[in-house]
Amino acid sequence: MLSFIKEGGTFLLNSPFPKDEVWSQLPGSVQQEIISKKLAFYIIDANTVAKDTGMNGRINTIMQTCYFALSGVLPKAEAIEQIKHAIEKTYSKKGKAVVEKNFEAVDATLENLFEVTVPETVSSTATMLSVVGKDAPDFVKEVTAMMMSGHGDELPVSKMSIDGTYPSGTTKWEKRNISDQVPLWEPDLCIQCGNCAFVCPHSVIRAKFYHEGFLKNVPDGFQSAPINSRGFPETKYTLQVYAEDCTGCNLCVEVCPATDPVNRAFKAINMAAKEPDTQIIKKQISFFEDLPWNNRSEINFSTVHGAQFMEPLFEFSGACAGCGETPYIKLLSQLFGDRLLVANATGCSSIYGGNLPTTPWTMNAAGQGPAWSNSLFEDNAEFGLGMRMTADHQLAMAHRLLIQLAPQLGDAFVQEIIHAPQLQESEIAAQRKRIETLKEKLTGITDTNANHLLSVCEQLVHRSVWLVGGDGWAYDIGYGGLDHALASGKNINILVLDTEVYSNTGGQSSKATPTAASAKFASAGKRGGKKDLAMQAVSYGNVYVARIAFGANPQQTMLAMREAEAYDGPSLILAYSHCIAHGYDLKDGLTQQNNAVASGYWPLMRYNPVLRTKKLNPFILDSTRPEIPLKEFAYKELRYKVLTQTNPEEAEELMTLAQEMVNLRWKNYEELATKTASDFVPVA
Amino acid sequence: MLSFIKEGGTFLLNSPFPKDEVWSQLPGSVQQEIISKKLAFYIIDANTVAKDTGMNGRINTIMQTCYFALSGVLPKAEAIEQIKHAIEKTYSKKGKAVVEKNFEAVDATLENLFEVTVPETVSSTATMLSVVGKDAPDFVKEVTAMMMSGHGDELPVSKMSIDGTYPSGTTKWEKRNISDQVPLWEPDLCIQCGNCAFVCPHSVIRAKFYHEGFLKNVPDGFQSAPINSRGFPETKYTLQVYAEDCTGCNLCVEVCPATDPVNRAFKAINMAAKEPDTQIIKKQISFFEDLPWNNRSEINFSTVHGAQFMEPLFEFSGACAGCGETPYIKLLSQLFGDRLLVANATGCSSIYGGNLPTTPWTMNAAGQGPAWSNSLFEDNAEFGLGMRMTADHQLAMAHRLLIQLAPQLGDAFVQEIIHAPQLQESEIAAQRKRIETLKEKLTGITDTNANHLLSVCEQLVHRSVWLVGGDGWAYDIGYGGLDHALASGKNINILVLDTEVYSNTGGQSSKATPTAASAKFASAGKRGGKKDLAMQAVSYGNVYVARIAFGANPQQTMLAMREAEAYDGPSLILAYSHCIAHGYDLKDGLTQQNNAVASGYWPLMRYNPVLRTKKLNPFILDSTRPEIPLKEFAYKELRYKVLTQTNPEEAEELMTLAQEMVNLRWKNYEELATKTASDFVPVA
Repeated sequence: MLSFIKEGGTFLLNSPFPKDEVWSQLPGSVQQEIISKKLAFYIIDANTVAKDTGMNGRINTIMQTCYFALSGVLPKAEAIEQIKHAIEKTYSKKGKAVVEKNFEAVDATLENLFEVTVPETVSSTATMLSVVGKDAPDFVKEVTAMMMSGHGDELPVSKMSIDGTYPSGTTKWEKRNISDQVPLWEPDLCIQCGNCAFVCPHSVIRAKFYHEGFLKNVPDGFQSAPINSRGFPETKYTLQVYAEDCTGCNLCVEVCPATDPVNRAFKAINMAAKEPDTQIIKKQISFFEDLPWNNRSEINFSTVHGAQFMEPLFEFSGACAGCGETPYIKLLSQLFGDRLLVANATGCSSIYGGNLPTTPWTMNAAGQGPAWSNSLFEDNAEFGLGMRMTADHQLAMAHRLLIQLAPQLGDAFVQEIIHAPQLQESEIAAQRKRIETLKEKLTGITDTNANHLLSVCEQLVHRSVWLVGGDGWAYDIGYGGLDHALASGKNINILVLDTEVYSNTGGQSSKATPTAASAKFASAGKRGGKKDLAMQAVSYGNVYVARIAFGANPQQTMLAMREAEAYDGPSLILAYSHCIAHGYDLKDGLTQQNNAVASGYWPLMRYNPVLRTKKLNPFILDSTRPEIPLKEFAYKELRYKVLTQTNPEEAEELMTLAQEMVNLRWKNYEELATKTASDFVPVA
Repeated sequence: MLSFIKEGGTFLLNSPFPKDEVWSQLPGSVQQEIISKKLAFYIIDANTVAKDTGMNGRINTIMQTCYFALSGVLPKAEAIEQIKHAIEKTYSKKGKAVVEKNFEAVDATLENLFEVTVPETVSSTATMLSVVGKDAPDFVKEVTAMMMSGHGDELPVSKMSIDGTYPSGTTKWEKRNISDQVPLWEPDLCIQCGNCAFVCPHSVIRAKFYHEGFLKNVPDGFQSAPINSRGFPETKYTLQVYAEDCTGCNLCVEVCPATDPVNRAFKAINMAAKEPDTQIIKKQISFFEDLPWNNRSEINFSTVHGAQFMEPLFEFSGACAGCGETPYIKLLSQLFGDRLLVANATGCSSIYGGNLPTTPWTMNAAGQGPAWSNSLFEDNAEFGLGMRMTADHQLAMAHRLLIQLAPQLGDAFVQEIIHAPQLQESEIAAQRKRIETLKEKLTGITDTNANHLLSVCEQLVHRSVWLVGGDGWAYDIGYGGLDHALASGKNINILVLDTEVYSNTGGQSSKATPTAASAKFASAGKRGGKKDLAMQAVSYGNVYVARIAFGANPQQTMLAMREAEAYDGPSLILAYSHCIAHGYDLKDGLTQQNNAVASGYWPLMRYNPVLRTKKLNPFILDSTRPEIPLKEFAYKELRYKVLTQTNPEEAEELMTLAQEMVNLRWKNYEELATKTASDFVPVA
């Protein structure tokens, strides 16, 4: 950090240590540089200032105040005045309370900005921590770590892959330690429901069950409990928190249903100060990781309880704390990750999904994991359709070669491998074994066709193709392609992470933005309706469609994802995703998802063409009649509330209109749910 | 034509004159070239051969046979065998009859291919006709005519406009004379309904009424009749056929309701041999054009009868004979042409609409006409939306400048011009007069704002912005943008010329292609449904939507176009367009439009948001319950019928499915038509 500072410069450090203790906490090399460059050294405990002034972890105003107070760009008094003026201009739309909190933060900053007296000699023997652990693979050490430490420009081109592929599973080496409050598990209170693991946006909470025989040489602080299931007396359960990767969002605590009978505020999982010795954390996690993952063929996929035992192949992304999108992606990776192809539209999910230097998509112990790519904002549906076509062509090629090589491979074996069912996990495991056998057989055959078959034989395991993106992609910029991909009839799955706004670019209105909400380009509240993409897809007849909200009904979320994947045709899932752009503390994200459903704003539904072919009503409404008015949901979010402050009359008119639209859609959905098969388009 | 032929070459001429007469019909310069280059000279009357063998004007097989018979590329017998082989391969899908007709044509060609004995001296004093008339404007003479005569490559860049604009109204100089059968009007039988003028795809039939005083120095063959309206004894009516521009499609005769009481096959308009002396035709038309166009403010716009008196500003395009698209475009030009902005998507309509060397879009005597442009296939909706935004911005600028200049212009005048109603033609005429006054006033003001206002004052007449294109654009390639333009809420009008297939590129399947029809990429019959673009637009609530078919209900067509234009928001009109790609003789195009509606396949409907705001049901069904089964409509067209020949079982299954879809849609539409306002999305 100090390599570019000039002699006599000013060094400001955001540090939790007080001014008379901070010096001793610095590594020796840093002390040396401060002394020899004759730096003025200041500290601020910005996180504490933010906490004390109700800024909820936001430190931008605080650090900016320090900058102006120290830099001398403007006279200090004038600078402070200007900062306050800017705050008023930037935040007044968000209400008086926000402005005043920021004012308070400015004042508190000035009271907590201290100069540190720099001693004349180096006292510390501590050295800088290495960027990544010593167990990291060579690529991570030689390339990823260089970027992480700000030396990416020094990397030679020869270090990059020649075909554009990029190693996955590297976020695990970037221990960000960004939250000092992390969940602490209470094994005695826990009912092992798995809700906390399910909602965690960063895959920080994981569960395994295992034979008690594994509990040897248990590291300090590693916790376990008898499994909460009768008839398995020797089986233990552990809920492991990856504390160094936690963002402190609190969703796990919010969702936890188990409370202490005496102290109702104390749950089976609670936020607590993070263990300060990261080596202790690392040892616990290392022990947990050495425990075997539970066999996929034996996990009950249909319940949240079962889902916690599936290995996530998407972890520790750079998404916001409390992100409402990543739990869907993590679930996707748990359900189908080992045979997943993902075409990812540009947007939040392409940024946290394919960020440099590290990649959150990862693989299991067998090296199986999602293949992921991002083309453009506008062409993602076509791009993903191409993945499907490619997989289908390679599968067809594999089938053709299998038949040609049947004399050498054995006819029965060839027929078995071609016609293998692959709906159950156990069936997929069986097919993987057949492919291993096939590979062995092929190495003994000198025919060139054997080599060709080797190059495509992995396609004999059914590929699960998912087109993933936000509402900006699906409703707007990529909608033409999305519609065309839906009309193709091909076996693709589309997951729309619907935040109802262009989140990644700062909150512009999309066609998914609801009536009465404010956004950029719709700052006076959107007058038009939210496009009903679900019904547009339903009109094709042969498209599986679902509206889901994991915070409101996780079971339905899982059911929809599995039905979509199993359906041999196009599927579209609209996933309600709470988002910082909605303007509230995301620890309440699950409550708001519940409210969105309870108000009828986001009806949960599934449209399954398979039912239509069986002469059953394919339209299923999964949520109950609205129980609260729209505004009870909406006015807990700044995106709706802001208009009540800037233009109360307009706000009221728009809310009435929005309520009318909610009522009408609910009525239509309810009617559809009570119709008969012949009222729907036949499946061709 | 002979400039590139080498000495001793072979010259084949397709000519209606027999071999001993053709020589004398050639201009002297052509005779000279044949003699001096020592050419072998052959003739074929391809049109007569085509007619006699039932090839309906298709001469490609005939000319190809001549080529092989004369060129010696292959031995003649072998060449003929190869041609027949190719015919079988190309046309067998279209049925045995088509193959046999082609075989017959080949044989008849050989019998009618004659060598002409070339005399030793030039005998003709005739000279080559000039490419365009002597009245043509300079640009047409110097640029257009050069291209028309195949010398476009010789044009210097300096002849082109520097800003990319291109003069309109030039097709009138390209008298193609492609049909020897043209309509002949029978004034005594005619009831002056205007149907023939309405359906003519090439604006070849026009009507005017005028005072009998104009009938002085009437040229040979010019016809008139007393107007068929009581109380106007001195008013005459003329239906003028622009015979040199006629393509001989026969639609005018098909639609004519007036028949001779004795000979029912003889109508008020009939196909007859064209007047051989083009000078006689030219004189009639010149006389007709000198008659004044009837005053737009006095024409009843709501009837076909009235529409015939509106000047078309789209004429003599290169569209196919019997085209089902151009009557809509012509009507558009009649209704709003003098203040029309057209964004045209790539496709048939961009080709015949913006063809080089000539342009069918034209202007009235005052120089007012449509501004037209074509950007890309995929961005036409955005392009047209941009036209709207531009016009709106320029109008806002004009208003601002008017208010600034009010002290000089007079406050009352400024208010009047800003708030002028412009829904009626008379109101538009009044506004045009105000603008003339404004211009005069402005020239007397030295303020620079006066110059600025002069540059935008024409925008004070309301601009009618139309986004025009085919189904390939609207349903497929430009759909994302179209949807976004609809969602914009802006006052744009979208006209989709729905041929249900990519016509211009040779008949590929689009999302508008109906179930059971065959097309390229859907040669085994389309299994999926036709996308219901109308209902998708209806779901926005604030979009005016109509499905029209001019051949089935011209009154509804006109009503929808006028309602769409009058609606201050987005409008979408889906216009059923019969097309050669449907595979039948287009003289039956109107009958088939009728059948499409009568079978319930193409329900005529309008969705008018204005009714919703008045608490009335906005969904109006304009056609009656299906009277014939789908197949009675469909099996008259090769696109449906071909599958009954190649795969009868599949054809039956698909037809059953298609009928089921028709029934379902009709049921849904009928239900919607009987609902109340509150069942529809409120207009925000």
